[in-house]
Amino acid sequence: MQRVRYVSSLPIRSFSTFGRLKSSRAQIIDGKKVASSVRQILAEGVEREKSRNSAFLPFLAIVQVGNREDSNVYVRNKIRAAEQIGMKAEHIRLPNTASQSDVVNQIEDLNQNPAIHGMLLQLPLDTTSPIDSGLCTQAIHPAKDVDGLHTDNAGKLAHGELQRCIIPCTPRGCLELIKSTGVEVTGKRAVVIGRSKIVGSPMSSLLLWNHATVTTCHSKTKDLAGVCSEADILIAAVGKAQLVKAGWVKPGAVVIDCGINAVDGRLIGDVDFESVKEVASWITPVPGGVGPMTVAMLLQNTFESAKRFQASNSG
Amino acid sequence: MQRVRYVSSLPIRSFSTFGRLKSSRAQIIDGKKVASSVRQILAEGVEREKSRNSAFLPFLAIVQVGNREDSNVYVRNKIRAAEQIGMKAEHIRLPNTASQSDVVNQIEDLNQNPAIHGMLLQLPLDTTSPIDSGLCTQAIHPAKDVDGLHTDNAGKLAHGELQRCIIPCTPRGCLELIKSTGVEVTGKRAVVIGRSKIVGSPMSSLLLWNHATVTTCHSKTKDLAGVCSEADILIAAVGKAQLVKAGWVKPGAVVIDCGINAVDGRLIGDVDFESVKEVASWITPVPGGVGPMTVAMLLQNTFESAKRFQASNSG
Repeated sequence: MQRVRYVSSLPIRSFSTFGRLKSSRAQIIDGKKVASSVRQILAEGVEREKSRNSAFLPFLAIVQVGNREDSNVYVRNKIRAAEQIGMKAEHIRLPNTASQSDVVNQIEDLNQNPAIHGMLLQLPLDTTSPIDSGLCTQAIHPAKDVDGLHTDNAGKLAHGELQRCIIPCTPRGCLELIKSTGVEVTGKRAVVIGRSKIVGSPMSSLLLWNHATVTTCHSKTKDLAGVCSEADILIAAVGKAQLVKAGWVKPGAVVIDCGINAVDGRLIGDVDFESVKEVASWITPVPGGVGPMTVAMLLQNTFESAKRFQASNSG
Repeated sequence: MQRVRYVSSLPIRSFSTFGRLKSSRAQIIDGKKVASSVRQILAEGVEREKSRNSAFLPFLAIVQVGNREDSNVYVRNKIRAAEQIGMKAEHIRLPNTASQSDVVNQIEDLNQNPAIHGMLLQLPLDTTSPIDSGLCTQAIHPAKDVDGLHTDNAGKLAHGELQRCIIPCTPRGCLELIKSTGVEVTGKRAVVIGRSKIVGSPMSSLLLWNHATVTTCHSKTKDLAGVCSEADILIAAVGKAQLVKAGWVKPGAVVIDCGINAVDGRLIGDVDFESVKEVASWITPVPGGVGPMTVAMLLQNTFESAKRFQASNSG
């Protein structure tokens, strides 16, 4: 059936019920491709630094407690990705019987170790002990906190000191994906659904200090659909499969989906991809969108940390 | 002339051009009165703690560099307010020739001094030396940082750890003023104009973690009037006299004015009070609104800090 281009004068939420030309469908933001490009540039950067200083070797340590199967996969991917670009990476696995002080002591050792430039504690912990994972995260020295979860890094980010903090990997990856579209962030309305420490909160700060006008939504937000429909840039980081419908999305918006929800053995995002791609101008798929960027940004953070340590040692 | 009650069906920005019944004018939020009540409760709290533990004495230190006349007034007011509720307060003035390390050393002394529960560095500095005031603020131990400007406190606030951080005085005072109206914050649309470390950014976080849906605006925001008109709670913290006009305000909104702009020898807020009070349901005046609350919250922060130190010493 032939369809004509329709310019809506109706409220946005009705828009998606009308046919649109195929050419007006969203372009897919290929996270694998962008992440691959980031890793390639990083590999060249590591090589260049090594050629200048043969002792340069970015070194990432990943502390895992216990033996969760999903964590094993994530850790293995991070280690492999680090090694592939010429970094060193070490997987330190503590038994699920490790106590909180065992974990903190391990982290302290890594803090003291001058060879280590970045570390992270793989969450969630698989443990038989009462361990405060927040306390363990706070034990990581802020300069080595390549997950960006320490309050020192969060505070600097909140204060807009982007050059002085380590930015959490997922929000940093989302920003890179937005930038990859060529869409300008300054002055845009951005809406972030979610306020977690690891994605939503730092995402709002990062967009704010990239000069977007940012609205943060959460479980207590009323008329979530209406608020979302104001967004030129919409970030879903809420952990509810296919929550964001086409009617929530402003035509032409950039939609970034941080959700990874396991449904019937498949990974599903927070965005109803099939319908939203008819409304948005750009959209990330799940999988293959934000996910690959998170690992790439972990490597980026580790590389930058190694360069800062190198500069401070030679200074 | 007799006027009738008019319920607008027009866009909000046109609303204020219509007459409203006198009874629909905003109620004034009396910051002096609320602050006075806070100080009274604090005085009773200090008295009660002293009766339980005769050694209990909240002690605030204010470090001033140089001799700015406005700073002298602010410092004197804070010292007097602390003493009036039974706290101890010390004004430490360094000469305007003091170096950065002089200031940091003074702060370190106060960090080490177990009698001191709270301190602040009065800004802006009046100095002939190149002093990084941010670096000096970061030298204050987070547990004694009663201005809440340390990144450790900012990070905890950004992460929603409200019970574990010290909240900057002005945003905390604004929240108390909002609460004094009886208006529920949860689920409301809040708009904050400004993203400074001392007011705008922490205000956004504080409203977010009190479960408002928060939008943060700034110099790069487009259609500021339109964004503001979405707000059930509107906070102006931008430092531009009478920026916020009646047409920017949603009828019935709560409007909090953090601006203190000296114009022709008078103090003027960021809100055009005379017109906005015809549209808002509640509004703070300038002076007599947010200003008195800032000092009251400084005392509140110092009192709470003293109690935390007491608890950790007896623990």
